Formats: sequence, C-alpha cells, structure tokens
Amino acid sequence: MSSHITSQDALAGLAAVIESRKAANGGDPGASYVARLLHKGPDSFLKKIGEEATEVVMAAKDADHGGDKTQIVYEVADLWFHCMVALAHYGLTPGDVIAELQRREGTSGIEEKALRKVLAREEGQA
Amino acid sequence: MSSHITSQDALAGLAAVIESRKAANGGDPGASYVARLLHKGPDSFLKKIGEEATEVVMAAKDADHGGDKTQIVYEVADLWFHCMVALAHYGLTPGDVIAELQRREGTSGIEEKALRKVLAREEGQA
Amino acid sequence: MSSHITSQDALAGLAAVIESRKAANGGDPGASYVARLLHKGPDSFLKKIGEEATEVVMAAKDADHGGDKTQIVYEVADLWFHCMVALAHYGLTPGDVIAELQRREGTSGIEEKALRKVLAREEGQA
Amino acid sequence: MSSHITSQDALAGLAAVIESRKAANGGDPGASYVARLLHKGPDSFLKKIGEEATEVVMAAKDADHGGDKTQIVYEVADLWFHCMVALAHYGLTPGDVIAELQRREGTSGIEEKALRKVLAREEGQA
Repeated sequence: MSSHITSQDALAGLAAVIESRKAANGGDPGASYVARLLHKGPDSFLKKIGEEATEVVMAAKDADHGGDKTQIVYEVADLWFHCMVALAHYGLTPGDVIAELQRREGTSGIEEKALRKVLAREEGQA
Repeated sequence: MSSHITSQDALAGLAAVIESRKAANGGDPGASYVARLLHKGPDSFLKKIGEEATEVVMAAKDADHGGDKTQIVYEVADLWFHCMVALAHYGLTPGDVIAELQRREGTSGIEEKALRKVLAREEGQA
Repeated sequence: MSSHITSQDALAGLAAVIESRKAANGGDPGASYVARLLHKGPDSFLKKIGEEATEVVMAAKDADHGGDKTQIVYEVADLWFHCMVALAHYGLTPGDVIAELQRREGTSGIEEKALRKVLAREEGQA
Repeated sequence: MSSHITSQDALAGLAAVIESRKAANGGDPGASYVARLLHKGPDSFLKKIGEEATEVVMAAKDADHGGDKTQIVYEVADLWFHCMVALAHYGLTPGDVIAELQRREGTSGIEEKALRKVLAREEGQA
C-alpha cells in the first residue's frame, strides 16, 4: 500500500537519499557526488540545471531526426535529479513541486489563461 | 503532496491529461495551451525547457540573496511540466524517468563514478 | 578608415544605440523594445539569454540534420544582442568582452590549460 | 578594446585562430582545446553554449546583489567564444552575425515590431 510506506514514493525516496548527503546529516564530499555538489554550493548544481536542460533539447532534436528516444529519458532524469539537489539545498521537496502541479491541474481556467497569453502574443507577431 | 497519492501516481495523472490534449485524442489547439504546444511541434516546448531552466536558476539565485523560496517551486513546476509535454510528444512518460532515477539509485557505484569524474576534472583545473 | 572613427565599430555602434535607450538617456519603454527590457529590469533580458541560447542549439541541431545554416546566424545575433542589453545594464560594453577574448588569445597556455582540464575529465569518465 | 582595432577585426582575428584548429587545417585535438571540441563534434560545443549562458545569468544575478561585475565579462566572453566555435563548425563567421545585427539596426520598424509583440503578450497576461 503506497499510502502508508514512504519508501514506495519514488521521488520522496530519492529526495531522502539526497537529504542524507547533506553535511549536517553526515554526507561526505569525498565519497558522494551529491554531497560534493551540496558542499560546493548552489552555483555547482544550478550550472548543471542549465547544462542538462540543453542536453534534453539536444536529445529531443536528435530524436526528431531519427535518433534513439531513450536518450531523452536519460537527459530528463539528469535534469530532474539536479533540480532535486537544488530543492534539497533550499529546504524544498519534489512533493512541493508535485503539489503545485496538482494545484494547477485542479484549478479551472489555468490552461485558458496560458492560451489567452499565447494567442495575444501571436496576434502581436502577425 | 497528499499522503495517499505517490509522486508516480500524481505525475501519471498529469501525463494522462497531457496525453488527452494530443490531436489524435481530440485535443483542441484553440482551447488548450498543451494542445497548442503539441500542435506547434517540438521547437515550441523545447524552447520553453531552456527558458524555464533559466528561470529556475534565477529564482534560486534570488533565494540565495534572501528572496522567497516558493518561487523556486513554481519555476521547477513549470520546467517539469514542459518536460512532460516533451515526453508525451515522444511517446515517453514520467514513469520512464522515475524508473531511470530508481535504476541509478539502486545501482551501486553510480555516485562513485560521478564523483571520480568530478575529482579528475578538478585536478585538471588545479 | 575604421581605426579612427568609433561609429564604424559595429558592436560599439550597436552598444551606443542600446545606451540611448536607457531611461536616463530618454529611452521610452512605450516606443522601444530595448527601453522596455531595461525598464523591466534584469530578469527580463536574462531570461531571454537562456531562451536564445536554447534557440542557437536548436538551430544548430537542425543544421546538423540538413537544415538552413542561416538560422544559426539569426539565433546567435539574437543571443549576442540580448547579452549586449545585459552588458549595458551593468555598465559594461562589448569592447570589454572583446578585450577579454583578446587577452586570452594573447596569453600563451590558455588552450593548454583548458585542454588539460578536458583530458582529466575524460580520464575520470573512463 | 584597442582604439585601432574594430570589434569586427578583433572577432575576425579570433575566428581565424579557431579556423586554424580544424583538422583540415592541421588542428591537433591532443594539443588544442578548440581542435578537441571541433573533433568531438557539435554536441560538445552546443552543450557548452547552454552551460555558459547559464553562467552569464548567474554572474548577472550575483552582480544584482552586489557581486563583482567583471565576472559577467568573463562569462559573456566564454559564451561568445563557444558560439564562435559553433559558427566555425558550420562554415559561418562572427562577421555574419555582426552583419545581421547591423541589418536589423538599419531597418526601421524592427524595435517597433518587437515591442508590439511584447505589448500584445502583456495584454494577454492581464
């Protein structure tokens, strides 16, 4: 039953591992990649977010031209992983992100607003 | 995040909504933002991935200097959402990404390899 | 003779136009795109730098697969242009960037250092 | 920037150095960073463009909060440099980019069009 066992929530489980890599929790920058990123500070993992986003785009463009789609999965995993390191640093969790996504999904009119924005922009381009 | 819905379930639910926005499933580009992105094709949502990644970085830098951390949650949500639109376009799911993240977590030596890479790089910089 | 007339320096000339768009110099956010970016503040043009960098990458990937290379020129122009808006905001000039590029070119050992870094990284990946 | 060398000349000089690093021109991936990037192919320098754009944004945000503005110059130099490696790979030059920037500057109505787009978008967001 997923509702009673935290370890069955995949992202929460991964977040717990990242949390354990903080210096305050005994993380060792000499033995863990995540501990090292956290030890070096925000610029180290924020830079990776920009880099991995670019790699997602490159993998997707390759797939558009016949490349292996699995590469997109690897790159999105890299991107989300480094986002989770950033979230941990700022005391946030993937659960916060998912709650925000669900809040938007549950709020009527969200897509309509985004769409109105896009239509206005396109009219401006015409 | 609700205690009764795992992150996998939540993302799968959102992926189902995105899936329903595909033209083949009746999605209407005139009524839905996601349908419009999918209709316009990859460049429209890939560009957003680069843009939203930059916004995550900006929100994080602001938080470093005393800004509101909640903004990071909004921007990561935007980034992950547009990644999910891309995944849908290529016939992939957030479940694929989570499976990849769990595979890595479960594989011993992953962090050690990433770390060895970093240490070698830093030695090269010295 | 390009050496004696500043206005013949292409990037300096463009920087002067951008400079004239600052509010302090009479720039009108209601009549000029650049004045508007400067008026809205850093996030408005920094976000564009991330977005335009992604568009350079997309145009390059398309060219890799047979697309029109001219698109790369357009996207690099967009990217450099928004960098120049940022430089202006911070009281910097494209001349500062070019001086830095020339300084590196003139300094022996620069490429060797960058290379040593790369070789060390690759060894770490092996 | 030296008063006797225009930005065009300076960038053309740097482009010539990059050109000389192509394998066809005797560039040695074992001795030159640029030769190595060109040898490894597009993904190696396109990834750097995404990474360096992120570093420009980070340096700018730091400057917003009191950091050293010189760092922005270094990061823009890195970004433009890797753009020039990409241009070289695709048989393009910084002169092409500068010509495009001048073409836009010389065309009346360019800023007005960009502005109309922005105003329409903002109306859509209201």
